[in-house]
Amino acid sequence: MKILVINCGSSSLKYQLINMKNEEVMAKGLVERIGIEGSVLTQKINDSKYEIKQYMKDHKEAIKLVVEALTHEEYGVIKNMNEISAVGHRVVHAGEKYSSSVLINEDVIKVLEQCVKLAPLHNPANIVGINVCRELIPNIPMVAVFDTAFHQTLPDYAYIYPLPYELYTKYAIRKYGFHGTSHKYVSDVAAQMLGKNKKDLKIITCHLGNGASLCAIDKGKSVDTSMGFTPLEGLAMGTRCGDIDSAIIPFLMKTGELTIDNVDNLLNKESGVLGISGVSSDFRDIEEAASRGNKRAELALEVFCYRVKKFIGAYIAAMGGVDCIVFTAGLGENSPETREKVCENLEFMGINVDKEKNKIRGKAMDISSKESRVKVFVIPTNEELMIAKETKTIVEIK
Amino acid sequence: MKILVINCGSSSLKYQLINMKNEEVMAKGLVERIGIEGSVLTQKINDSKYEIKQYMKDHKEAIKLVVEALTHEEYGVIKNMNEISAVGHRVVHAGEKYSSSVLINEDVIKVLEQCVKLAPLHNPANIVGINVCRELIPNIPMVAVFDTAFHQTLPDYAYIYPLPYELYTKYAIRKYGFHGTSHKYVSDVAAQMLGKNKKDLKIITCHLGNGASLCAIDKGKSVDTSMGFTPLEGLAMGTRCGDIDSAIIPFLMKTGELTIDNVDNLLNKESGVLGISGVSSDFRDIEEAASRGNKRAELALEVFCYRVKKFIGAYIAAMGGVDCIVFTAGLGENSPETREKVCENLEFMGINVDKEKNKIRGKAMDISSKESRVKVFVIPTNEELMIAKETKTIVEIK
Repeated sequence: MKILVINCGSSSLKYQLINMKNEEVMAKGLVERIGIEGSVLTQKINDSKYEIKQYMKDHKEAIKLVVEALTHEEYGVIKNMNEISAVGHRVVHAGEKYSSSVLINEDVIKVLEQCVKLAPLHNPANIVGINVCRELIPNIPMVAVFDTAFHQTLPDYAYIYPLPYELYTKYAIRKYGFHGTSHKYVSDVAAQMLGKNKKDLKIITCHLGNGASLCAIDKGKSVDTSMGFTPLEGLAMGTRCGDIDSAIIPFLMKTGELTIDNVDNLLNKESGVLGISGVSSDFRDIEEAASRGNKRAELALEVFCYRVKKFIGAYIAAMGGVDCIVFTAGLGENSPETREKVCENLEFMGINVDKEKNKIRGKAMDISSKESRVKVFVIPTNEELMIAKETKTIVEIK
Repeated sequence: MKILVINCGSSSLKYQLINMKNEEVMAKGLVERIGIEGSVLTQKINDSKYEIKQYMKDHKEAIKLVVEALTHEEYGVIKNMNEISAVGHRVVHAGEKYSSSVLINEDVIKVLEQCVKLAPLHNPANIVGINVCRELIPNIPMVAVFDTAFHQTLPDYAYIYPLPYELYTKYAIRKYGFHGTSHKYVSDVAAQMLGKNKKDLKIITCHLGNGASLCAIDKGKSVDTSMGFTPLEGLAMGTRCGDIDSAIIPFLMKTGELTIDNVDNLLNKESGVLGISGVSSDFRDIEEAASRGNKRAELALEVFCYRVKKFIGAYIAAMGGVDCIVFTAGLGENSPETREKVCENLEFMGINVDKEKNKIRGKAMDISSKESRVKVFVIPTNEELMIAKETKTIVEIK
């Protein structure tokens, strides 16, 4: 069974064709600058790279080119699209409607459209991707896999904000959480590595990339997560502020520093470790600057790690314990410094990282010391594979 | 040595006259509705109550009446104001200027005026109170005791927000923290109860009242606290929202639900447990409603306790351990239900409350079980006594 995974952004599109027999990635590609001059499609098959530079005015033209690239006589990997059993679409927001992946039909698309107001930057592109695929490759079942679905198991006391309750009933303002596909994937792998049923485990997953979130997973279910109504809440991130005193917003608006139009931009694009360091939103640049003695870069890394550490403590308290902590995503997989700083002085809670083992980058590994009561794992995330697996499950039970 | 403690609000004034020899409260009083029809001064001496109902157009008239009440032939406790050695003024905000209490002079008043922009609702009333006292009872030394001072020991990675660094340098936007006098007082008492030097202790103090905050105190110093730039951040409170996804604010402004003028009101006055429950901002009313089966009242209490629990976990992680947790203020001292819910399932962190001992209300007591590695104390706060003590210290060393 071959499954195509599609992740549509507003001007980009990522895809992977996965052979589910051996979970092998047959082809992966990226289309950039859709509707912008300089559009380009790059497809990788093993180590070889195939590039189409050609203006694509919209997602329809982009997906046409994806089909062409996948079925290309010389550079392709399949003869025609009928070889594909299903398409899995990453969709950011399903509101409170879906707590698992779902076979796409007209009703599903209507729900996704209703959720546009909750994810105005993401859902429209996801919907366009779905509609174009249904037009270009009809008769292939399609599945929507949601970033929010895994967190629909949060108890009400974790998702209700201390705001007038009417804001929940009228505007659906509550904590949703994101990165669900990743948190679910790495927690499943962690349970396998422990040789235990996830129903017997309390796991904290730390998805630390340019966007970053933590998740508390009790008995296989997400019970709390650091992102909220939007992906702005929680940790400090590359450019997002995470948790701040929200009174800062009216304060800045009254000084004239902020208008309603640029508040989103300031908090989402100019804050986080970029805002503190003034150097970059890329943690590698900041680590480099810090190593050269840049004090604000050092401070940015300290703030980032301190906040991850506090969330770990909070989630241990929330679950009444923890069996395993997982680091994943760009920083989580590749920054021993970050992992060390986050886990420093957590022996009180039974957490102890082995400095030698912690040197690992980008590979699944137990990095806890022998004395550690809590296991600490590095596990590379694989959202595309997770989407393909979810798609396979849904298509098979339909 | 007799010390007068004054706490000026915008239309109210609280005072206590304390004899420092035995720390006895000689008189305590409250002036309400200053500048509003129906002004009234109530003074209590032991169990007897003395009331003056008389319109007071401003704080000057109010403080004149306080002097009159204290020196009243029949209802007073002193012959004249010269018996008072010093006046201690509670001041909310000292920005980054003062990390301890300070003898008031012209320069200090200038600094307080500079801090008005950081505490526009509180500092102006505090300054008026100081100026009027200097006019009416000159020649008596006066000391300012700040809510923010105790938290000036926070490390930079705890007080810097993940926002553009320029907002810190230009507008002094950072975490300040409040309730410092209370956190310091109860942590000092906790160290005495433990018979240890506070330099050898890690303490978490939970000041849970209508306003609520937690403080992590390592070696006697505040290293983190849940309130921030303003007293809005952190826990859910009576009417304040505490931590939310700050993207909710621009979202609501775009729906037209919020304007810049009512955002402060919504987040500070209509949120918290009042917002969730729809019942009241008073925890006693909410507990009562919950006991009658009101689901939203129950939810409000659950949200409140869950957030306290998570902060405790976060601060244990931040300090790398904890020796003692202290509950204080209205709820902390008087609600066994709250303390039980907060401490439930924290055995993983060595915290175990004895249900019988936890029935205590309003008295200092060790409520932890024998097995508990961490001590859990109830300690009634006494901000006025702390202000008097600080005032005494400053006056004596001047």
